[in-house]
Amino acid sequence: MKVAIQGERGAFSHQAALKLLPKATVLACSRSIEVFDALDSGRAGAAVIPVENTLAGPVGEHLDLMLERDVFIHGEVRLRIEHNLIAAPGVKLKDIKQVLSHPVALDQCRNFFRSHKNLSPIPFYDTAGAVKHVMAQELSDVAGIASVQAAKEYGGNILMKGLEDNKQNVTRFFLILKKRKIAADANKTSLVFSLKNVAGALFKALSVFALRDLDLSKIESRPVRGRPWEYCFFVDVLRGDDQAMLLALRHLEELAGFVKVLGVYKQAAE
Amino acid sequence: MKVAIQGERGAFSHQAALKLLPKATVLACSRSIEVFDALDSGRAGAAVIPVENTLAGPVGEHLDLMLERDVFIHGEVRLRIEHNLIAAPGVKLKDIKQVLSHPVALDQCRNFFRSHKNLSPIPFYDTAGAVKHVMAQELSDVAGIASVQAAKEYGGNILMKGLEDNKQNVTRFFLILKKRKIAADANKTSLVFSLKNVAGALFKALSVFALRDLDLSKIESRPVRGRPWEYCFFVDVLRGDDQAMLLALRHLEELAGFVKVLGVYKQAAE
Repeated sequence: MKVAIQGERGAFSHQAALKLLPKATVLACSRSIEVFDALDSGRAGAAVIPVENTLAGPVGEHLDLMLERDVFIHGEVRLRIEHNLIAAPGVKLKDIKQVLSHPVALDQCRNFFRSHKNLSPIPFYDTAGAVKHVMAQELSDVAGIASVQAAKEYGGNILMKGLEDNKQNVTRFFLILKKRKIAADANKTSLVFSLKNVAGALFKALSVFALRDLDLSKIESRPVRGRPWEYCFFVDVLRGDDQAMLLALRHLEELAGFVKVLGVYKQAAE
Repeated sequence: MKVAIQGERGAFSHQAALKLLPKATVLACSRSIEVFDALDSGRAGAAVIPVENTLAGPVGEHLDLMLERDVFIHGEVRLRIEHNLIAAPGVKLKDIKQVLSHPVALDQCRNFFRSHKNLSPIPFYDTAGAVKHVMAQELSDVAGIASVQAAKEYGGNILMKGLEDNKQNVTRFFLILKKRKIAADANKTSLVFSLKNVAGALFKALSVFALRDLDLSKIESRPVRGRPWEYCFFVDVLRGDDQAMLLALRHLEELAGFVKVLGVYKQAAE
């Protein structure tokens, strides 16, 4: 199965894709919208996209695209984000002058740069792309910060592991397909709905779950595109495709502007 | 009054600070945490920070810092984010080969780069910093993408305006001070609370507002730092410091792990 990801081969999304589908072949896309286009055109049979990070919060662009496009969530996985200093084989730490990576990754390694003042952080378009660049240009005084997968992918050498300041750095990824299918062991439902901006609207909407003892594991308000300061709500419910959930959704449709079920899938292990 | 912002002088935060406090002197800080440190130490009397963008969603780091630090919101403002192509005076569009800016800004100008294929987008640490760099180095084939304020600040020449793909690009900023004070015309309350992860917890928490006809204008779940997949909730209520709000907060304290009022202030005009 060909799985589309945003970013270069060796990106954290690549690592997440292999956790979800160990035999996947990865289709690297430079932009998120191309990932969804690849699904639409059939160039990829599936996609793996980050939706939430414990430090940075939700990946809004991907939530918006799941709302707009005709896709369905088939699974989720959580990945510890570990940053590694990666250079060409033979290059030593003392040779390095510049370190390339995505600005967010550089920002997550502040303590490392504080204790290595001779190293200059240089923003680059992508974490794995930084390692690709270092290897392709055969740079001997430049390293990249990226995943273990990026070192494997481009033949880089890991000089240091665990550069991230906060070890509680976990990203949640969705496996999405065009096909709408619910596995027998599915126990979690992701959905999105919109509400009129009137007092008590969200309270009433949440009552459809509370009245049926359905537990929410997450709620996210998102601006509605093109309508500043109006919101829709992305909700995860710890329940699969059963009668209580169907009744709750039917009830929610009475109250909400629209309701879209984004997927019914098996919850990832913590 | 000295106002701390994150980013270089001429950043969008600088523009927002001048909208909130026209006579402010800006203290530019490279990191968000330094903005809060400047407030703590008294080096700045106030700070202006972005908290939400209509396209990108919440600025999680700033929500977290408002939760952790002893600060109070005194006002809010909304700023249309307009991206401009800025070069040294005398430099023409046809001279430009590279365009520097923050990766998020470059990403918001995709159509511009698609219709100007001879221009290479180059990621830089800051929007205004890009213009500062172009001017300081007297570059004649490089431009920056930044705010009108950045052009003013560094004497750059605006070659093109309105480069952003989406004109509905609005950022909401808070004015924060150490001092806890509520203006007479305050009509909006921002607060954060945590909940135990049990079914119906959020529904019960929102009942404290719904039962008193208090209208929420926004709700944001945020991961609790150091406790993956536990959440606290940032809520805006369209009500000032009156009896109904005090009773709602007292009621909320019965249900929540903690409640912190982040500020009571006058709502910005749409």
